[in-house]
Amino acid sequence: MSIQKKIKVGILGATGMVGQNYLKLLDNHPWFEVVALAASEKSSGKPFQEAVTNRWLMDTEIPDDCKEIVVDDVKEVRAVSEKCQMVFSCFEISDKELIKEYEELYAKEGLAVVSNASANRWTEDVPMILPEINHKHLKIIDIQRKRMGSQGFIVVKPNCSVQSYLTPVFALEQAGFEVEKMIVNTLQAVSGAGYPGVPSLSMIDNVIPYISGEEEKSEKEPQKILGSVVGEKINNRSTLNISAHCNRVPVVDGHLACVSLKFAEKKPSREEILNIWSNFSSKPQKLNLPFAPLNPITYKEEENRPQPRLDRNTDKAMTVTLGRLRECKVFDYRFVGLSHNTARGAAGGGILNAELLVAEGYVS
Amino acid sequence: MSIQKKIKVGILGATGMVGQNYLKLLDNHPWFEVVALAASEKSSGKPFQEAVTNRWLMDTEIPDDCKEIVVDDVKEVRAVSEKCQMVFSCFEISDKELIKEYEELYAKEGLAVVSNASANRWTEDVPMILPEINHKHLKIIDIQRKRMGSQGFIVVKPNCSVQSYLTPVFALEQAGFEVEKMIVNTLQAVSGAGYPGVPSLSMIDNVIPYISGEEEKSEKEPQKILGSVVGEKINNRSTLNISAHCNRVPVVDGHLACVSLKFAEKKPSREEILNIWSNFSSKPQKLNLPFAPLNPITYKEEENRPQPRLDRNTDKAMTVTLGRLRECKVFDYRFVGLSHNTARGAAGGGILNAELLVAEGYVS
Amino acid sequence: MSIQKKIKVGILGATGMVGQNYLKLLDNHPWFEVVALAASEKSSGKPFQEAVTNRWLMDTEIPDDCKEIVVDDVKEVRAVSEKCQMVFSCFEISDKELIKEYEELYAKEGLAVVSNASANRWTEDVPMILPEINHKHLKIIDIQRKRMGSQGFIVVKPNCSVQSYLTPVFALEQAGFEVEKMIVNTLQAVSGAGYPGVPSLSMIDNVIPYISGEEEKSEKEPQKILGSVVGEKINNRSTLNISAHCNRVPVVDGHLACVSLKFAEKKPSREEILNIWSNFSSKPQKLNLPFAPLNPITYKEEENRPQPRLDRNTDKAMTVTLGRLRECKVFDYRFVGLSHNTARGAAGGGILNAELLVAEGYVS
Amino acid sequence: MSIQKKIKVGILGATGMVGQNYLKLLDNHPWFEVVALAASEKSSGKPFQEAVTNRWLMDTEIPDDCKEIVVDDVKEVRAVSEKCQMVFSCFEISDKELIKEYEELYAKEGLAVVSNASANRWTEDVPMILPEINHKHLKIIDIQRKRMGSQGFIVVKPNCSVQSYLTPVFALEQAGFEVEKMIVNTLQAVSGAGYPGVPSLSMIDNVIPYISGEEEKSEKEPQKILGSVVGEKINNRSTLNISAHCNRVPVVDGHLACVSLKFAEKKPSREEILNIWSNFSSKPQKLNLPFAPLNPITYKEEENRPQPRLDRNTDKAMTVTLGRLRECKVFDYRFVGLSHNTARGAAGGGILNAELLVAEGYVS
Repeated sequence: MSIQKKIKVGILGATGMVGQNYLKLLDNHPWFEVVALAASEKSSGKPFQEAVTNRWLMDTEIPDDCKEIVVDDVKEVRAVSEKCQMVFSCFEISDKELIKEYEELYAKEGLAVVSNASANRWTEDVPMILPEINHKHLKIIDIQRKRMGSQGFIVVKPNCSVQSYLTPVFALEQAGFEVEKMIVNTLQAVSGAGYPGVPSLSMIDNVIPYISGEEEKSEKEPQKILGSVVGEKINNRSTLNISAHCNRVPVVDGHLACVSLKFAEKKPSREEILNIWSNFSSKPQKLNLPFAPLNPITYKEEENRPQPRLDRNTDKAMTVTLGRLRECKVFDYRFVGLSHNTARGAAGGGILNAELLVAEGYVS
Repeated sequence: MSIQKKIKVGILGATGMVGQNYLKLLDNHPWFEVVALAASEKSSGKPFQEAVTNRWLMDTEIPDDCKEIVVDDVKEVRAVSEKCQMVFSCFEISDKELIKEYEELYAKEGLAVVSNASANRWTEDVPMILPEINHKHLKIIDIQRKRMGSQGFIVVKPNCSVQSYLTPVFALEQAGFEVEKMIVNTLQAVSGAGYPGVPSLSMIDNVIPYISGEEEKSEKEPQKILGSVVGEKINNRSTLNISAHCNRVPVVDGHLACVSLKFAEKKPSREEILNIWSNFSSKPQKLNLPFAPLNPITYKEEENRPQPRLDRNTDKAMTVTLGRLRECKVFDYRFVGLSHNTARGAAGGGILNAELLVAEGYVS
Repeated sequence: MSIQKKIKVGILGATGMVGQNYLKLLDNHPWFEVVALAASEKSSGKPFQEAVTNRWLMDTEIPDDCKEIVVDDVKEVRAVSEKCQMVFSCFEISDKELIKEYEELYAKEGLAVVSNASANRWTEDVPMILPEINHKHLKIIDIQRKRMGSQGFIVVKPNCSVQSYLTPVFALEQAGFEVEKMIVNTLQAVSGAGYPGVPSLSMIDNVIPYISGEEEKSEKEPQKILGSVVGEKINNRSTLNISAHCNRVPVVDGHLACVSLKFAEKKPSREEILNIWSNFSSKPQKLNLPFAPLNPITYKEEENRPQPRLDRNTDKAMTVTLGRLRECKVFDYRFVGLSHNTARGAAGGGILNAELLVAEGYVS
Repeated sequence: MSIQKKIKVGILGATGMVGQNYLKLLDNHPWFEVVALAASEKSSGKPFQEAVTNRWLMDTEIPDDCKEIVVDDVKEVRAVSEKCQMVFSCFEISDKELIKEYEELYAKEGLAVVSNASANRWTEDVPMILPEINHKHLKIIDIQRKRMGSQGFIVVKPNCSVQSYLTPVFALEQAGFEVEKMIVNTLQAVSGAGYPGVPSLSMIDNVIPYISGEEEKSEKEPQKILGSVVGEKINNRSTLNISAHCNRVPVVDGHLACVSLKFAEKKPSREEILNIWSNFSSKPQKLNLPFAPLNPITYKEEENRPQPRLDRNTDKAMTVTLGRLRECKVFDYRFVGLSHNTARGAAGGGILNAELLVAEGYVS
């Protein structure tokens, strides 16, 4: 697929960590052109470069096109909306009600709002999209548009920890092997907590066996993603029980998940599983979306992989890297999954959602 | 209990990491006097201080008493044995058969061999002791002495990862709540791999989801420890199923375990569990052994504890620190356990075993 | 020296990181009894244990004696002063003028104020004490008392980076070898920045070649410490030129300094230097102060020492550990120095100052 | 410049860390085609992919073209030579005499030997090339060819720590400001020690103030690089005195240098220095070599830069990033320099040397 004219996009929360990741990843994007950068009142009115003085934390330079863009006040919804067809929402504030309100305001202005925030994840008519799994949920956008009274709408992505274990499970279920129970243990990177985030005193010679709110998200969000659109809402898939324990570890990028799972009835052989995973491909691959990994799942044969530093960037940092598939002494199988939390799990995942929306005709 | 005359002890493998930990912890021990330091032929004949030039890796000085001890060749079994009543075996070689052979040779010379090595853990008449749990297994020493044809014998301790989850489970079982299934996920410190051990290139901005041989030990050893002496052997407790996934993380000392468990029949309330743990006390406490922690189990109420750097040294680094007890979405309960792997899990655990042997009259 | 009755002390800023270090180190102190814990209004009125819920960051428990002390509002100067003879000032606020004001208010109430803050370091009649170097500066307290109009006074300690290079230089100067120039490069631990302090994203796979304000302090403070009391003021020793470059590195505790120095005229031999250092002893040693290290300077012969993790705790964490003395290709000599920044460089150093004041009769 | 036909290259020591970096960086190189991979006898005869099973440590996949190349025995000089026009020498053995011998054997077979090893750095007719500085030294190759009795020759690159401080100094000298003295303090990444290299026990919560042999190289090699070819040899520039102190820090890639320098006579202003650096460009830029950075020197204005993780990859990881230029209290100026040690400082630097040789007609 090629695009006639680039789509004009804005970033809400552009000066924050996720916003900076969007800027980094959208540099030279074949479909999207960044035209608006919105942030808090404090930054508004300044050229972006000036607004992030001593706060640009990417390991690449600020894209040249964006250095001089004057930052908008994110509350000036109409002014920002007039410039864009789509916005990426990555507010870094703790007030979820406020985020929800602003995402709706932007949608009501007719924009596609592609969100990284958790505020709208449980809104009934808002699809929570992991493109390789539930691209079909997009059809609920029609319902949402009615509520908004405009062509605008909101699409969200799940929490950054989810894809490392959910994509492989979905591949198995799609092949006819329903999963009933999972115990998931995550070792999560510090970039997931933003900046300044986790203090270094807590991450030198240490790990923290707790991340606020993370276990709840890791357990519940899969039920919506694996659900199905029935009438005007998404029915959760409540028969998959997940117990998640989330740890913070001194890794910059890359969330690791150690998974034990039990099938509901039929249990595939190890070879069947490896086959299913290596052949798994989905809509983003068929549509050849720019940010789609060639393979949604990559399996490493080495006994000590995946490792965050060595494997997180595989396939544009957008694949899920698996390893160590073996029998479980208590359930059926165990494996390890890894995905890049700020690429696949945040800005990269948001961009893939946006590409899917374009390719499926929801943005034009 | 007080001792008339200090017991003379030797260390087999004194120049290695575990050996150095023994030296550090035995400094000023009220019952034991280090009189022999044995190592490979390469070190033998040199004063200990010289033998470890540029290789002493403790954060304390070499104990003054030991600096000038001339290192023995560990293969000169008789020469070493003549000096000691007991030896701590912490060979750092990979040939388990050789370790087994030498531990037996020392036992046959009449010594108590208190071992950290895994070589004899599955020898039928060798007890694998975690003093708070299975001190009663010591009675099999009588059987073993017959085989040795001497008053000598071997006692081993389990793998360093085991106590962080097994002590709390045992406390529950002893109170009448049998555990049927456990899924355990460990985050283990690099000191567990010795020196040089894990390369820094693998531990900066990284974790490794694999430790060779560790999962097997973590799953199997509890069955022997929870077993019972029947006649001339220890019957394993095979009804406890454990699935262990072991990760290496960039922490110096302190193994963390995230545990989900399911009871066989009766399920205690959260309050009951906390009560059982806070009241748990056992033989080493009753005997007031010098290295016994005041409380075998310490529970932290804070939501983000235990943490290795902050909690590993609690109660002489000999307690197991627990936290985050909560319901599990798949099994019954979940919690986090921490124990200091080079103290409680290695040299400190060995010394506690030795103290138990003295207090119970097996060494005199 | 022994004390008849323990001296009652308070901690101003008790809930902060340095305050917590004071509490940890003062536990069971033979001369001092902690009776008052003062902090901001937010904490006041609560039992200390409650005030630091989820914020106690030491690797030891809160001392039992202090758990139930009700926190005072640090602004209630009289109320706090009535309980104590001495206060340790470790405010964690950025407003230096305010700190200065409060330290004076406490002094005017008749208390000895032993400060870790930088606010009064350049006040003319306030001595900046490194006890092994300039204990004689205490005599300026008499001048200060006049200004205060009370028996109270303020004594400060220098920045945490200073002792690792200044004590060894002073020892050489005292032996007749005046130093003219020094280029100092520090590798400083994150605990020096307090909590939350340096973000972990900046300290994993990274170092930062900059610490705000640190180079200025490292260059200037030695001039006052090495100065001499003349009449009513301290004359700076302006003939010692120091160039300091300060780096932040991912180490929990322990500041390292790489030093190149040039002597003014006479240049000692390497043997002379080692001799001077190994024989160096001063007032705190003579007075046998509880927190005085046995040796103010410890020299390690190994080619790769001192190292923060292995050497910072030597001699109660109060000595300066040196190593790698060798010729410099540009100046005369080079060496590496290490001192524990939160012990010797902060709370421990403050306690040693307090002990010196008691032993010299300034507090009774 | 474009190339008619790709030049066939081999890698001596292909299975080691530097060898793997060469493979990673040469993937899709416009001028070079990897046709031979040589290693020790142990690996020879195996497809490369098999030879590095569990030992491929790059964060990218093995290039497809190289996976099936059968590894040669590096000692089969003729067999390897027949396939290539040039070899990159990155032996990972400690026997320098042996490396020297083999590099000569390959040169005598007519090959251009581009070496990362230190074995031939002080061979009189072997140029030690940092292309932006001493590309003119290549003319000594004619002398060397006579000694070899072939068109083959050896070119070496300096130690990985050198460019971070030498390129900026050279730029100043070329502009007429001769430097007389430098005190350099390096904070070096662990990848510089290869694999397994530095143990993680030494790099968690620690730094090491010593790297074997590194200070000597850092002090001496600049004298040869800044020297000039006179007749049949390179005269060292002995009037530049450098004192280097080298530290190992827990950083994966990127060597940092803190530099204080004194000019011989004329001293430029800060603005002049910044101007000289920002305008500095040299032969590799003029020739537009594929691996040449656009700017050999990049200056960052932020007060806390350069930082290894954020800046090491700037300009293809081939520039030297500088920051913090300011007056020195003891010498004239101070600054901080950073270069990527495994890219610019090892394989990338070797490739740039190779490109220079091709562009200058020494390889055809």
